[in-house]
Amino acid sequence: MTIHELDTPALIVELDILERNLAGMAAYADKHGLRLRPHTKTHKSVAIARRQLALGAAGLTVAKPGEAEVMAAAEPPELLVAYPTIGARKLARLAEIAKRTRLNVALDSMEAAQALSAALVAAKAEAGVLTEADVGLHRVGVTGAHALAQLIEVVQRLPNLVWDGIAFYPGHIKSLDEDGLAQIESLSETVAALADRFLPRIVSGGSTPTWAHSHRIRGLNEIRPGTYVFNDRNSVHIGSCEWEDCAASILTTVVSTAQPGQVIVDGGSKTFSSDRMVDGASGFGAIPEDWSAEFHKMNEEHGFIKTERRWRIGDRIRIIPNHICVAVNLHERVFGVRGETVEEAWGVDARGKLQ
Amino acid sequence: MTIHELDTPALIVELDILERNLAGMAAYADKHGLRLRPHTKTHKSVAIARRQLALGAAGLTVAKPGEAEVMAAAEPPELLVAYPTIGARKLARLAEIAKRTRLNVALDSMEAAQALSAALVAAKAEAGVLTEADVGLHRVGVTGAHALAQLIEVVQRLPNLVWDGIAFYPGHIKSLDEDGLAQIESLSETVAALADRFLPRIVSGGSTPTWAHSHRIRGLNEIRPGTYVFNDRNSVHIGSCEWEDCAASILTTVVSTAQPGQVIVDGGSKTFSSDRMVDGASGFGAIPEDWSAEFHKMNEEHGFIKTERRWRIGDRIRIIPNHICVAVNLHERVFGVRGETVEEAWGVDARGKLQ
Repeated sequence: MTIHELDTPALIVELDILERNLAGMAAYADKHGLRLRPHTKTHKSVAIARRQLALGAAGLTVAKPGEAEVMAAAEPPELLVAYPTIGARKLARLAEIAKRTRLNVALDSMEAAQALSAALVAAKAEAGVLTEADVGLHRVGVTGAHALAQLIEVVQRLPNLVWDGIAFYPGHIKSLDEDGLAQIESLSETVAALADRFLPRIVSGGSTPTWAHSHRIRGLNEIRPGTYVFNDRNSVHIGSCEWEDCAASILTTVVSTAQPGQVIVDGGSKTFSSDRMVDGASGFGAIPEDWSAEFHKMNEEHGFIKTERRWRIGDRIRIIPNHICVAVNLHERVFGVRGETVEEAWGVDARGKLQ
Repeated sequence: MTIHELDTPALIVELDILERNLAGMAAYADKHGLRLRPHTKTHKSVAIARRQLALGAAGLTVAKPGEAEVMAAAEPPELLVAYPTIGARKLARLAEIAKRTRLNVALDSMEAAQALSAALVAAKAEAGVLTEADVGLHRVGVTGAHALAQLIEVVQRLPNLVWDGIAFYPGHIKSLDEDGLAQIESLSETVAALADRFLPRIVSGGSTPTWAHSHRIRGLNEIRPGTYVFNDRNSVHIGSCEWEDCAASILTTVVSTAQPGQVIVDGGSKTFSSDRMVDGASGFGAIPEDWSAEFHKMNEEHGFIKTERRWRIGDRIRIIPNHICVAVNLHERVFGVRGETVEEAWGVDARGKLQ
């Protein structure tokens, strides 16, 4: 089958680029002695998780119990739920997973630790805990070494929990310009101080934007990038990769040229998501075949593109989305291509696993 | 089961309000002699489509062939694909549906009409065509009566097509203030002129924001509102309903209170979508239990809420999303509730049917 035969909009992944991205991150982690525990939120696919593990990943990362249930099928040596799991039913589900898979859970409150411990005791299971520290995003995570010490103490005393280390997420670092590099420097001091004080087995942090600087963060020994497998318009914009590292794009079809200077393609917010650029730049995607075109507006199923080029009805336009993680979650299937050949297709197994 | 037992984030629909919204629109259409052909993009559920038909709807509306395949199961008297269908495979799928269901297809180009006709001839099937006119949104639709006359003539000459009338979408009217009402007045003149000139069987238009003014648009005889079943923060904001008409909300759980003055809930852009308000107002949802709270930021699985109230970890917060149509499409299931009782659950059958 060729890409010309695909019904659009279709999420396509260039396998050559995907494989280079997977191998590149594995080599980086290996070179610097970092554990690589990729966040599967980007691809949500067991098939890709297996490829990450085959390349030496120490485990996998998920956010929700529903994702953990799906990703357990990839048989990761360690599975990290990098999200505070709250609620008795969800904790019981995690405890079930913990019977079969070595589980780590990140959390930032005494309440979360106590409830997790109770669920594990009831299921006769154990789990590792990463206590979450806020390092500047002000999202989750306790603030300061004193609060972290208290939380670690709580975890160490609770039954069926093993304190495995510290997690953080430097999502406040959104660029790799001078300011971004200064933020990484400051982050390194914070992390080193925590590592020196608490001597954790795991110090897990990093994100795709900052991944190539992870070895400069003293004390850090685990990274969990997600977006690097596919990359997107944001990744290029912030300087974490080049256009030729973007493996994923959405193949659309021109469905109307009724308005002069504009084409309508068959994908909108239900195909790309309505995520804007992290730095506020305009537009909803990049069009490598027509760089000056502006994908400036969308409705649910319509993409509005201003262009000088005379596209015709039925023409196919490939668009690199702003944010690939939310776009993948909108698709039932992903098509792996080399050149114009569709070599394989895989399901987005954890799509919509919100709970 | 009660709502307290649901794993969150959960999309819940208050059945009393849903039923009132369904009955209200049916009564309005009936009173004014308008055909009601609800757009199923909002709920994407066969169960709700059946309720709309049971209340007298003349048919159903979809955008994509994949949605048409799903909604054919509700056995609508007429199924409208209100979107230009381009591509041989998709047209062959539509032609298959046309063998069993009376199909209308909206289109705005000679190319689309010719390709549809060819697919229908090959399948030995027929379909009705609504020629699409642009009335101000500048999305799809031909401009002006002359271009419309040409397109109608093409459709009338092509085999296996029946010209059934005119479609338009007044999506440029986004408010019901003085300006919005003036736009409706001007729309009425445009539509009346087309109806008088071409004498179509069907003149199909309208959207949820303008629905209650549809009877004032002379010549219009069919409406296809979608959002009215559930409503959302935008619907209230533009004045097309009140808060008590919002049937759908997303039940979330507070998962972190680590930052003072802020709570983190377990839903972000993968739960609500990142759709902004149509008029640029800030925020990603309304919180009826805490009106002054600001749902000001989200990541994929985190909602950031600034609040004075002392919510605790594990508390449930119900949030009315900005745009319910894109939010529903992110969920696997919807829970129908009365008070605190979960009475039923239904699947989002056409979720992700992008092709």
